[in-house]
Amino acid sequence: MTPFSPAEHADRRARAAAQAARAGLDGVLVTPGPDLLYFLGYTPATVTERLTMLVVPADGDPVAVVPRIEAHDLSLGTGGVLDAVEWTDGEDEYAAAGRLLRPGGRYAVTDAAWAMHVLGLQRTLPGTSYEAFTRALPMLRAVKTPGEVGRLAAAGAAADAAFGEVCGLPFAGRREREVAADLDRLLRDHGHEQVDFTLVCAGENGADPHHDAGDRVIADGDMVVLDFGGLRDGYGSDTTRTVHVGPLSAQEQEVHDIVRAAQEAGVRAVVPGARCQDVDRAARAVVDESGYGEFFIHRTGHGIGLTTHEPPYLVEGEEQPIEPGMCFSVEPGIYLPGRFGVRIEDIVVAFPGALGAPVPGVEPVPDAAVRLNRTPHEAQLVG
Amino acid sequence: MTPFSPAEHADRRARAAAQAARAGLDGVLVTPGPDLLYFLGYTPATVTERLTMLVVPADGDPVAVVPRIEAHDLSLGTGGVLDAVEWTDGEDEYAAAGRLLRPGGRYAVTDAAWAMHVLGLQRTLPGTSYEAFTRALPMLRAVKTPGEVGRLAAAGAAADAAFGEVCGLPFAGRREREVAADLDRLLRDHGHEQVDFTLVCAGENGADPHHDAGDRVIADGDMVVLDFGGLRDGYGSDTTRTVHVGPLSAQEQEVHDIVRAAQEAGVRAVVPGARCQDVDRAARAVVDESGYGEFFIHRTGHGIGLTTHEPPYLVEGEEQPIEPGMCFSVEPGIYLPGRFGVRIEDIVVAFPGALGAPVPGVEPVPDAAVRLNRTPHEAQLVG
Repeated sequence: MTPFSPAEHADRRARAAAQAARAGLDGVLVTPGPDLLYFLGYTPATVTERLTMLVVPADGDPVAVVPRIEAHDLSLGTGGVLDAVEWTDGEDEYAAAGRLLRPGGRYAVTDAAWAMHVLGLQRTLPGTSYEAFTRALPMLRAVKTPGEVGRLAAAGAAADAAFGEVCGLPFAGRREREVAADLDRLLRDHGHEQVDFTLVCAGENGADPHHDAGDRVIADGDMVVLDFGGLRDGYGSDTTRTVHVGPLSAQEQEVHDIVRAAQEAGVRAVVPGARCQDVDRAARAVVDESGYGEFFIHRTGHGIGLTTHEPPYLVEGEEQPIEPGMCFSVEPGIYLPGRFGVRIEDIVVAFPGALGAPVPGVEPVPDAAVRLNRTPHEAQLVG
Repeated sequence: MTPFSPAEHADRRARAAAQAARAGLDGVLVTPGPDLLYFLGYTPATVTERLTMLVVPADGDPVAVVPRIEAHDLSLGTGGVLDAVEWTDGEDEYAAAGRLLRPGGRYAVTDAAWAMHVLGLQRTLPGTSYEAFTRALPMLRAVKTPGEVGRLAAAGAAADAAFGEVCGLPFAGRREREVAADLDRLLRDHGHEQVDFTLVCAGENGADPHHDAGDRVIADGDMVVLDFGGLRDGYGSDTTRTVHVGPLSAQEQEVHDIVRAAQEAGVRAVVPGARCQDVDRAARAVVDESGYGEFFIHRTGHGIGLTTHEPPYLVEGEEQPIEPGMCFSVEPGIYLPGRFGVRIEDIVVAFPGALGAPVPGVEPVPDAAVRLNRTPHEAQLVG
């Protein structure tokens, strides 16, 4: 992944400290993975049970806790700008980390931090409390800079290219997992360094939104849901298109049209003042009105950035206002058990005209969402 | 990964329930990753923020909590033998999970479970307490069956083959990351489906135990630490050899000989009645006596199985007795800052003659450790 500048990482840490202060928190605790990469540009060579944690206090300088054997790499990776507390195998790493926290304080912690580490901190400092980022500071990484939107747009374009090519390959007579392997290879050919999923769900398997590609042989007349994504230059793609082997039946066409209209309604609901749940409501209303409401069994979307699933979530109850630079999926679906399913998903960026800087490949619209995927939504006929 | 039988998974769950009962726990909570694979043979198509959790009560039947959109896959993956509680986006998944727990109870939880999930359970059931597996039931996956040892042996043999081939490739004049890419490819050529790390640490970089391969060009006269591993058929390899470009200096040879003797002493310390810390003490004693004790800056080893790092840890203070079928690394090292480092690492299985069944490729010795890596320990001279 092309590194961001040390200044950008420092800005992000300062923003986290300010957000923590506003939320009445004593600071944020960041462990290896996307959060640490975001705030420090560093990731250990391999993530293990050994505690690495960045403490960003609401006021004061950030400090890292790092295993002694990785201290040199951390220092190299961050240009040595950061104070670090080293701990050695056999020492109590939670005591070392605990000394950096305020007894009785309240901290936000990386969602996917190891439970073992949070439980270790709780043991060491029983009066200190912790909340997951998604609950305490969900929007910490949600608003993307123009540079980040540019990477998401490039990942989306790469996914579009992969989709275009997979449609030219044979479907009928091959197993779902063979098409999934093609998608994997095509995403990598177009620059993805990591592929997170290549769901290929034929016929009745399409009625299972997270069905993984299996041994089912794709047949003439099958609707096929393709949901694929991963990371390109560190940022995520996540696209769904529902294709068909040969002509669609009347009901297949009807369901496909409804999902297409619902997806369009979701994207159009991204207007100034809209909240995340409004996008879900707008897409769901179209499906409900069509009479298929009970078969739309998941939320409408999720944020995307250094991971392929992150806040903001577009779900009933999420009242977070949508801000310029938020990037998320819009992906309604209809799932008819035992028969077939349809889902259509694009990544969009909210209000890119209000970002203050142009984004290569993204039209600078101020008051709307702009799609980062551009392949047609109509059911492509595959062979 | 070749699946284990449903009966073996059921046995493992029954063993976890029994261990939990003995430890005074109300049950174990298992989230996606190696633990869920171990107890259920299931892993979601992609691990996201959505809660999937297996509850194995100390008495009673196991139940899974699963997102509605993944319920069908879970049922397929487990042959439908398991009760499952489904939750839908927008519902409170922690309330759904909490109903399966005993208020005021005490549970062991997957080390790497998302902090967000444990904090969510704590919010829902404030009187219930949680401990990480490594602390509460560290040996849950530590004792391997003959079938598991066989897979570890096959992974070790594949890593040995990769090492043998990499030694025939040029080192001098190439960057560390180029040799790392070769190792990655060779591990995959020999059947690894996942490569977790390929550390290549030349000259002064060898003094940094977890240095990742970088842009340093390997030169004539360099000591080079190679530490590489990943998963083959679901089980881990993790091997370190320290090679040299051209003849060694007298001190390089001395340090290499000491580490070799320390590694041998560690392996020989695996005798009936030995505790984990005894292996660390035995290896460390050799280094201490040589006068280099201050430069051996990490523990002597770690368990290995479905992950490349897991309990038991061979570290001072770990009094767990070593049991037949435990598999772990023995990997002492000496690190001279600014100059070079040496580490030698094999995976061993304890007392394989006492396992009750033969393991293909492993000698059935009853009262000793048997190495699963067999390439020479002497510094191989590379070109």
